[in-house]
Amino acid sequence: MLMRMSSLFLRTLRDDPVDAEVDSHKLLVRAGYIRRAAPGIYTWLPLGLKVLAHVEQVVREEMAAAGAQEIHFPALLPREPYETTNRWTEYGPNLFRLQDRRGNDYLLAPTHEEMFTLMVKDLYSSYKDLPLALYQIQTKYRDEARPRAGLLRGREFIMKDAYTFDIDADSHAASYQAQRDAYERIFARLGLPYVIVAATSGAMGGSRSEEFLSPSPIGEDTYVRSAGGYAANVEAVTTPVPEAIPFDDAPAAHVEDTPDTPTIASLVDVANERFPRASGAWTAADTLKNVVVVLTHPDGERELVVVGVPGDRDVDMKRLEAAVAPADVEAAGEADFARHPELVKGYIGPGVLGPNGDGGRELADDGRVVSGAVRYLLDPRIVPGTSWITGANLPGRHVFELVAGRDFSADGTVEAAEVRAGDAAPDGSGPLELARGIEMGHVFDLGTKYSQALGLTVLDQNGKARVVHMGSYGVGVSRAVAALAENFHDERGLTWPVAVAPAQVHVVATGKDDAVFAAAEEIAAGLVAQGLDVLVDDRRKVSPGVKFADAELLGIPVIVVVGRGLADGVVEVRRRASGVTEEVAVQGAVSSVLEVVDSLR
Amino acid sequence: MLMRMSSLFLRTLRDDPVDAEVDSHKLLVRAGYIRRAAPGIYTWLPLGLKVLAHVEQVVREEMAAAGAQEIHFPALLPREPYETTNRWTEYGPNLFRLQDRRGNDYLLAPTHEEMFTLMVKDLYSSYKDLPLALYQIQTKYRDEARPRAGLLRGREFIMKDAYTFDIDADSHAASYQAQRDAYERIFARLGLPYVIVAATSGAMGGSRSEEFLSPSPIGEDTYVRSAGGYAANVEAVTTPVPEAIPFDDAPAAHVEDTPDTPTIASLVDVANERFPRASGAWTAADTLKNVVVVLTHPDGERELVVVGVPGDRDVDMKRLEAAVAPADVEAAGEADFARHPELVKGYIGPGVLGPNGDGGRELADDGRVVSGAVRYLLDPRIVPGTSWITGANLPGRHVFELVAGRDFSADGTVEAAEVRAGDAAPDGSGPLELARGIEMGHVFDLGTKYSQALGLTVLDQNGKARVVHMGSYGVGVSRAVAALAENFHDERGLTWPVAVAPAQVHVVATGKDDAVFAAAEEIAAGLVAQGLDVLVDDRRKVSPGVKFADAELLGIPVIVVVGRGLADGVVEVRRRASGVTEEVAVQGAVSSVLEVVDSLR
Repeated sequence: MLMRMSSLFLRTLRDDPVDAEVDSHKLLVRAGYIRRAAPGIYTWLPLGLKVLAHVEQVVREEMAAAGAQEIHFPALLPREPYETTNRWTEYGPNLFRLQDRRGNDYLLAPTHEEMFTLMVKDLYSSYKDLPLALYQIQTKYRDEARPRAGLLRGREFIMKDAYTFDIDADSHAASYQAQRDAYERIFARLGLPYVIVAATSGAMGGSRSEEFLSPSPIGEDTYVRSAGGYAANVEAVTTPVPEAIPFDDAPAAHVEDTPDTPTIASLVDVANERFPRASGAWTAADTLKNVVVVLTHPDGERELVVVGVPGDRDVDMKRLEAAVAPADVEAAGEADFARHPELVKGYIGPGVLGPNGDGGRELADDGRVVSGAVRYLLDPRIVPGTSWITGANLPGRHVFELVAGRDFSADGTVEAAEVRAGDAAPDGSGPLELARGIEMGHVFDLGTKYSQALGLTVLDQNGKARVVHMGSYGVGVSRAVAALAENFHDERGLTWPVAVAPAQVHVVATGKDDAVFAAAEEIAAGLVAQGLDVLVDDRRKVSPGVKFADAELLGIPVIVVVGRGLADGVVEVRRRASGVTEEVAVQGAVSSVLEVVDSLR
Repeated sequence: MLMRMSSLFLRTLRDDPVDAEVDSHKLLVRAGYIRRAAPGIYTWLPLGLKVLAHVEQVVREEMAAAGAQEIHFPALLPREPYETTNRWTEYGPNLFRLQDRRGNDYLLAPTHEEMFTLMVKDLYSSYKDLPLALYQIQTKYRDEARPRAGLLRGREFIMKDAYTFDIDADSHAASYQAQRDAYERIFARLGLPYVIVAATSGAMGGSRSEEFLSPSPIGEDTYVRSAGGYAANVEAVTTPVPEAIPFDDAPAAHVEDTPDTPTIASLVDVANERFPRASGAWTAADTLKNVVVVLTHPDGERELVVVGVPGDRDVDMKRLEAAVAPADVEAAGEADFARHPELVKGYIGPGVLGPNGDGGRELADDGRVVSGAVRYLLDPRIVPGTSWITGANLPGRHVFELVAGRDFSADGTVEAAEVRAGDAAPDGSGPLELARGIEMGHVFDLGTKYSQALGLTVLDQNGKARVVHMGSYGVGVSRAVAALAENFHDERGLTWPVAVAPAQVHVVATGKDDAVFAAAEEIAAGLVAQGLDVLVDDRRKVSPGVKFADAELLGIPVIVVVGRGLADGVVEVRRRASGVTEEVAVQGAVSSVLEVVDSLR
């Protein structure tokens, strides 16, 4: 189809929007692809909608190739199914909730496991109906605490979510693989670089999941890779647990005066100065750091928890949050400390925490502390027999040679310490490297979490009811547009791949000569007749400089400049991304341009 | 593309869903096109989604042909723009409202005038940018008091909404006409019969509107037509106002005992029996009926209003509601009467109403009664000089020969009396006929209502700011699917037109012979290769009777039966709608079927 700059609903902007931090956000707004309607909520303008449609089309084709059938659920859903699986509560403040005029509870769905499960339960009843793969491309809602980066983390966004239904784990494995393969084809066709990493399942539940991350320094996810092929989101990295150490001969713990040592560094200095040991200098790795955090559970209850990690590592809040999902995590504030005078800031130690604290405490079924000493979770490295310098719960005092398993214990372990480059991969495949990425897709083996909760069974060959094995598979469709912009741009603007560009060719007419405009229109019409989408810059009173700048900003892959060269029978064909430019004869320009477009596919 | 019954996500149902009242709803559910998720909220199954996609495609093509550009707004929107135009309040309980995690107010948009207006304001500033036509196909929300008839009146539904922006009324007229023409093409292509009628503008505001109604006995709208070409929704019909009658010589009013006459019929009987008049028998048309209703204003306030109509007509609550929009209307209840002892049920007359009642009453700016006698609105036929029998506000007593303009007056007139077949068209074009229809489209001249409220101006040729003249134009896209089903079905199932059918051909293989299934697959593949969408019934253990019944129910326009005839080298080609059936040679079956499909386009 043909678009004209003279009538296209578009205004390019010279300046970056004030709220934009990342390039894709800046450029998509400046180039008139999207526009903000509210925090994390965007309007698609004509060019943006075309890119989105192209991404959707690729997704649809690959879903069909994977044997998935498209259906479409509402976004506005009743509370009950989500109540049954407890996600009405577990989603906490991330869920948009509302009531209808009769006072019935509804939600704006963040994902549709419940609805797909119930629909299959409604229609199917036999093993003969399986395997089954269904999907939708649909608008989803998530009341993010911090919507950011334009389309990368929105509150209203478009997802492709697919669901598979199988009679058993073996059959599920094939369905999972088919979706995973489809995802590889989707991202390859879109031209989006990706890595597949092991991931945690979060609020989705289930037993196994993998993420498709697009490597990017502005990505919100950090992942690790080893030379031996291990790849995981840092949230999913498990710490190799050392052997326990016999401690029968270990010296007794002793409390020492260590004034003015509120930090690990100051503590290590004082320890080496005043309490040197024979086996070598104390280091931060010899200290046990106890970090006080607040978990906000989905029911709104706040719980104080102390996380103990070796002092040479920080607590990674995202890893901690993944570990304690569905609770949210934040650092404890002054008010929290005020309510717990036993927690002496800078000098906290196991003595007042967990089982070592008040013996009369009570725990709820989910492990929360109902009364008594604060819950205490330890890094897996802190195995029995390891010896630590840590807080003595008195201002200016630390305890030395405190031995885990002898002198203290905890309520459990938690994967919360930061993962660092050079750490060993948990599968022994070598040291880890770290990088950042944008989560583009996520595939989940859900097991029977939803089918069990919602009663989805089918009769097997022996007439016996079997709980269906499910998988769920998401692609961030609107996010892919941003990830593409993040991958395909330069300092002058966007540089779309042909597969998703809003048009394949941008014909720019320059000057004031009617013949130039006529030739531009003729070339554009010729390209449209060949099935291409073309944007022609037919503006009469706009300077060539502005037109070129707009063309660079919009990022259509092939730019045809019809201008002064026309008198000599030539037009200029420029590849936007590489900048490679050639002159071609105006006679035959259409087929020359077609060749260039094809060369970029 | 090819679909197979053996794997299609579909279960046809024998029984009508219990909540379904209309044929389209019953059949779309029974044939597995849609499924209810909540009251007025539906899920699209594979076949339904295909019909929907075809309708959307027709709409897109005709919008493009009309020069409209597609964009896409969010459904979740902040309160502010709707506050500015007062629609946040005016929509009353029809609007889904919610708050985000920070306590900010949001709504699920029922329509997007505000957002389009602000977007154009944001991007455009000159008369040179106009005219402009924009549209979206988008999911909308309306918390209907009584969702009904499946997709016909839902709470989550899909609309095409277009908006035009012009420098003045003349230019607007052309934009309006272009949209109106596009609508005619859309409904013609869909095969949906339609009439265009004058309409009221309701919550949309603006100066003029027309509806596209699809005639149907189950339609919620009643419209009128005259032989002379007048056509209007009954809500928009205006009553020709008779000339006032001189009343200088009219006899004085007199109150009479009329015991046990709570109804118009009993009153007319008693009047003729006990108070006969020389000029002919009293009829219901001589009586003035005063009906007590409650308006619920958007701010939630309830107001008692009395509507006076000639006793031979009922009050049409929908006409009344259109007349007093945005207020809702309901009949007064016992509690309302209890609070107003001056209203003697069955004997209410003007004496205690409106200006004739308590003289000390106060009216608010919008005409509501703040204190004093109840507001009184009269049918336009009740002009000065007309003489009436009506209630005397005493049990068992009526007043005779009460003359309007002499003995009583009102707070105003209201178009609330029912319109009846045979009534005169307001433009003098003859008597009216009545019919019912489904509202498929609505085109509005908005004037400057939204541009004024939201400050959308552009500079004209003289550099002067001009308020932009707007129009808005809606098509019920999901509703069109139901209207099509309502128009295209018979007692056995659906009978889709080729333009929207989920597939053009349904190939049914019957029997157990492998050769039959192979031939069916071959024909199906041949048709797909020709660009057709085909559903092949390849189920092995299903009887021919069940397969035929399913094919009739699904309603794909051409059914090809491959069965016993195959031995003789023939297959059967049946046109679903007409039932016309022919045998064609299996050699060349593909081109024979193609011809049949083309003959139905």
